[in-house]
Amino acid sequence: MAQGTLHIVGVGPGDPELLTVRAVKILQAAKVVAHFCRHDKKGHARTIADPYITPGTQDVRLAYPFTIEVSVEDPAYQRDIQGFYDACAEQLAESLAQGQDVVLLCEGEPFLYGSAMYLFDRLKGRFDTDVVPGIAAMNGCWSQAQVPMTHGDDVLCVLPATLPEAELAHWLGQTDAAVVMKIGRNMPKVRRALEQSGRLPDAHYVERGTQAGSFTQPFEKCGDTAPYFSLVLVPGRKGVR
Amino acid sequence: MAQGTLHIVGVGPGDPELLTVRAVKILQAAKVVAHFCRHDKKGHARTIADPYITPGTQDVRLAYPFTIEVSVEDPAYQRDIQGFYDACAEQLAESLAQGQDVVLLCEGEPFLYGSAMYLFDRLKGRFDTDVVPGIAAMNGCWSQAQVPMTHGDDVLCVLPATLPEAELAHWLGQTDAAVVMKIGRNMPKVRRALEQSGRLPDAHYVERGTQAGSFTQPFEKCGDTAPYFSLVLVPGRKGVR
Ligand SMILES: C[S@@+](CC[C@H](N)C(=O)[O-])C[C@H]1O[C@@H](n2cnc3c(N)ncnc32)[C@H](O)[C@@H]1O
Ligand SMILES: C[S@@+](CC[C@H](N)C(=O)[O-])C[C@H]1O[C@@H](n2cnc3c(N)ncnc32)[C@H](O)[C@@H]1O
Repeated sequence: MAQGTLHIVGVGPGDPELLTVRAVKILQAAKVVAHFCRHDKKGHARTIADPYITPGTQDVRLAYPFTIEVSVEDPAYQRDIQGFYDACAEQLAESLAQGQDVVLLCEGEPFLYGSAMYLFDRLKGRFDTDVVPGIAAMNGCWSQAQVPMTHGDDVLCVLPATLPEAELAHWLGQTDAAVVMKIGRNMPKVRRALEQSGRLPDAHYVERGTQAGSFTQPFEKCGDTAPYFSLVLVPGRKGVR
Repeated sequence: MAQGTLHIVGVGPGDPELLTVRAVKILQAAKVVAHFCRHDKKGHARTIADPYITPGTQDVRLAYPFTIEVSVEDPAYQRDIQGFYDACAEQLAESLAQGQDVVLLCEGEPFLYGSAMYLFDRLKGRFDTDVVPGIAAMNGCWSQAQVPMTHGDDVLCVLPATLPEAELAHWLGQTDAAVVMKIGRNMPKVRRALEQSGRLPDAHYVERGTQAGSFTQPFEKCGDTAPYFSLVLVPGRKGVR
């Protein structure tokens, strides 16, 4: 019996019209659609994909085992999350082994900090895999905020706000353009790193880019809290010449 | 009389199925579609968009004034290219001022090294602008090559191969993940920078990603020449743990 194919599909940052034609075709034909979520909620990627999923499609919920946020630095987190990804991979492997194609949804672009990568890493080689790129959160955010990022030979650094403050400041100081992701409760640290590197006046803050309630403003005007769906854009140095 | 809106539309790296639903809607409704091209050829972005453009749409060709490649370091290039972008902006401004919406196509993602940014920079403020993100070349390439790029707190640097060799080596040595764009005749320099930084064994080469004739292999196997549509991927250091 032929095995199924694992399709990892990027669904973009929020606006359902930012799915690609290829993603839409795959979703409309899908029989089994998996997505990561909290135990008490529908996952964000699944909500974005909603308009394209046909009635009767089987939903596979991959619910994170954490109810309160555990620090990623906590060794218990690392152990639990690995076990969780192992279990998810085995769950999808069962359907795939039975010849069932499985679509795994991913917010934004799958191979840029996407959880789907952890299942890809575990299942590639064992099954056929197909990866459909999505509009990355940063692309959606800078388009909506109308902030051109890199001209000429500008360097762009994509930085997770979970890095230590000194490292963030170091990268921000030397790069031309930057995107800082995973802001959330790292907001005060990001502010200090922007200040230290002299990039604060140029930084744009974007919240819920391309989603309902989206919002952008100069970073300087921001307070010390930010939701999960937020990022910071520092445009390159080589703009209009 | 109301002025027209300038829609800058990213068309992705090559596969027409990688346009977004929103890009397709805008193209199907478009009356005037502009694109950059060589004087003797249809532009690449226009070819990608072809399946979605309806008969009777007006094509505006923005033909680069160079017949042979002029070095970007040449001051004459900088002067001519600025004048060219000025003239293109004025050409689109005429239609916009007459109340005509104009769609300007861009390969990949417009705000990542896209020529469309130079017209955006000149026309924003004067006219309403709308920017539709596209799948960036790097996203299309790493999805097709099935190379997950950034896990956890990996840093990603996007580097133009036009940078000096020492700078390229410096960035490659300190980042976790990297994409090197604009390879073309910089191939020998890119190889030396990968060697110096110790990243050569991990580097993937992708040519014409998601296009007909696309091709990927370990960078180590590459020769000293590469076409315009090629890039290099160095995946992050924090893969499966
Ligand atoms: C685990 S990463 C996933 C990134 C995603 N795979 C991508 O392509 O961008 C989650 C982070 O992406 C950013 N993000 C995702 N969607 C966003 C949105 N709509 N607006 C702003 N930031 C967003 C936030 O910084 C968030 O902390
Ligand atoms: C002027 S930049 C435009 C980048 C584009 N706006 C994007 O979003 O990626 C041109 C460079 O993009 C890369 N590129 C564009 N399309 C590509 C493709 N289909 N395959 C490989 N590289 C590509 C090459 O490195 C090329 O030199």
